[in-house]
Amino acid sequence: MMMSSFMPVRLFWGRNCLKESTYPFNQLGRKALIVTGRHSADISGALNDIQTVLKNSGISYVHFNQVTENPLVKTVQDAADLCMEENCDFIVGIGGGSPVDAAKAVAVAVFNKMKARDVYDVRRIQGALPLVAVPLTSGTGTEATPFSVLTNEENGKKAGFGHDSMFPRVSFCDPAYTRTVPPIVTRDTGLDALSHLLEGVFSAKRNMTLYPLIRQGVLDIMQWLEYAMEDGNNLEARSRLMMASLWGGMVIAQTGTTLQHAIGYPLTVRYGVSHGRANGLVLSAIYRLYFPAVKNALHQVFGSDASSLGDRLDDWLASFELTESLSISREDIPDMAREVMEARNMANNPLSVNQSDIEDLYRIIC
Amino acid sequence: MMMSSFMPVRLFWGRNCLKESTYPFNQLGRKALIVTGRHSADISGALNDIQTVLKNSGISYVHFNQVTENPLVKTVQDAADLCMEENCDFIVGIGGGSPVDAAKAVAVAVFNKMKARDVYDVRRIQGALPLVAVPLTSGTGTEATPFSVLTNEENGKKAGFGHDSMFPRVSFCDPAYTRTVPPIVTRDTGLDALSHLLEGVFSAKRNMTLYPLIRQGVLDIMQWLEYAMEDGNNLEARSRLMMASLWGGMVIAQTGTTLQHAIGYPLTVRYGVSHGRANGLVLSAIYRLYFPAVKNALHQVFGSDASSLGDRLDDWLASFELTESLSISREDIPDMAREVMEARNMANNPLSVNQSDIEDLYRIIC
Ligand SMILES: [Fe+2]
Ligand SMILES: [Fe+2]
Repeated sequence: MMMSSFMPVRLFWGRNCLKESTYPFNQLGRKALIVTGRHSADISGALNDIQTVLKNSGISYVHFNQVTENPLVKTVQDAADLCMEENCDFIVGIGGGSPVDAAKAVAVAVFNKMKARDVYDVRRIQGALPLVAVPLTSGTGTEATPFSVLTNEENGKKAGFGHDSMFPRVSFCDPAYTRTVPPIVTRDTGLDALSHLLEGVFSAKRNMTLYPLIRQGVLDIMQWLEYAMEDGNNLEARSRLMMASLWGGMVIAQTGTTLQHAIGYPLTVRYGVSHGRANGLVLSAIYRLYFPAVKNALHQVFGSDASSLGDRLDDWLASFELTESLSISREDIPDMAREVMEARNMANNPLSVNQSDIEDLYRIIC
Repeated sequence: MMMSSFMPVRLFWGRNCLKESTYPFNQLGRKALIVTGRHSADISGALNDIQTVLKNSGISYVHFNQVTENPLVKTVQDAADLCMEENCDFIVGIGGGSPVDAAKAVAVAVFNKMKARDVYDVRRIQGALPLVAVPLTSGTGTEATPFSVLTNEENGKKAGFGHDSMFPRVSFCDPAYTRTVPPIVTRDTGLDALSHLLEGVFSAKRNMTLYPLIRQGVLDIMQWLEYAMEDGNNLEARSRLMMASLWGGMVIAQTGTTLQHAIGYPLTVRYGVSHGRANGLVLSAIYRLYFPAVKNALHQVFGSDASSLGDRLDDWLASFELTESLSISREDIPDMAREVMEARNMANNPLSVNQSDIEDLYRIIC
């Protein structure tokens, strides 16, 4: 099997890795647009740290703090407009996946003089402004991927796009920033990272050079997620999760995601189910659906643990009671399944999946 | 602990990954200098494969086939002269570590208009010609590192140097190319890769994000090396070793090598001991020397296997009879130890090492 990989991000990892950074920020540009959500960049301490290092490098900045969960195309446009007005020449994205994904889209829109709604047309992308990524959750792995996922408010669709120029130039992963993440967000983002790792085995583009990272990441999340939920200040747990999340990003950067991800997008857009929870809701069912096609790969990754992994996943996921107070209307299923059939990540499925397979998967959680 | 990593090589991996490549070679340049040793590029089939893909891309090339094991500075100068005469604008290095390392040095010398003997002065390096790497042994990992190791025929010293611009732009790893590597070379290059992986734990710059690759690589080499020595055509064994070697390169690209490597260089220059064999000769002794300083890290990497790893390594290494017909003169020890004390990789040792420690290590194998 032929495999390829490319992950040109300069990664810094560890406690105070941003605050005490000697990275030459002035190689990135002279004025930064800092893209964040409303609060987490501040609460985590990351905003203060980046402002300090930028000031110390003699770099000015403008702060855009309007990114919401599941960033909208129109928010990206607002940030891109600000970037151009203020003549910013590089972008800093700080946050859970959403602000960093929005930052990537801004970097593309401004560099290519495109409207935000056109960034999906990746053939038009020639490059992007340099991007600094600072993750504040252990989930998306966006700090190591060339992907951005946006929701288009015009058609109500959530979809991803990617281009090599969208890899962050440099990412700073400090597990201490995630101490203030509440338990439910810790759970959901952890399940997102777990999905990414498993999708590295599920994907038709699976890549053996990444298998050791997948194995360790899955084991670490299943071992440490509950500790981080119980005690946000458990820095050992926070570190394990942030590293597993980084590995998940490194993995999907090469393998892409699959139906496992695509099936969650309509749940998020229509029902406000968080991205990670949506992934967790269908993970067991997807595992069983894919199993015949990925049995050998699972064995290569997990060795003798592979045969019991499905059952252990079932039990472990059940303990999180993800379906609690979930109410998905069965009437929506055909529409949602049609939407999933059109998703780009369907190309990576390890077996062919049709509309009725997807409807069956939705029925399990309705 | 703060860690950083950067590995911007586009990696292709697997059977026929070069031969069937759709990589856009014409983005690299218009005329290639192909740098090889005398025979292995031809015997392995790699030379024919690269010539075919270059021709199909309308790219012309010149072939320099004079690189020997432990490439000399003067050979690099000859290749750089040819490169300039022929107006080549990118380099293809095909071979065990030596031709690829020479190719890296040529890429630096020509780009920076430096003499080959000046490439060690890395402050003068501003960039390098684009480089394609095709490994033909499973050992050096040079396909994933920014390092080159040359021997200066003027002072008889072997030493490495590195610069971010020296990462290959793209590497093609086809395990089938290693089928013709003879058993002893398979052994020695495998021991080199094993050293790189373990030095990723030993090094003061050890990086936890790489630990799963180290663990799997070490286990795979210890499991598969003998199969590849017994039957060169065992493609499963060849694949495992080539992947472990790649991981070893990915690891030392971040952590650097240590005394473990430095101590071997004088053995190679003075006694012609192959690089990998020199590493293997001192590995057990180095493991014991470092152990108190790296115990925790070993445990993090190998879990409950860590405590028995030293003994297992001893037994396994003993089976290769590396000291057979080795004759190092005890009189040379002080000189060699002095040379080691000056090596750059000494900065990465996990504990402070003095000249008499090094002399003790040499005495074990004399
Ligand atoms: Fe995700
Ligand atoms: Fe080596």
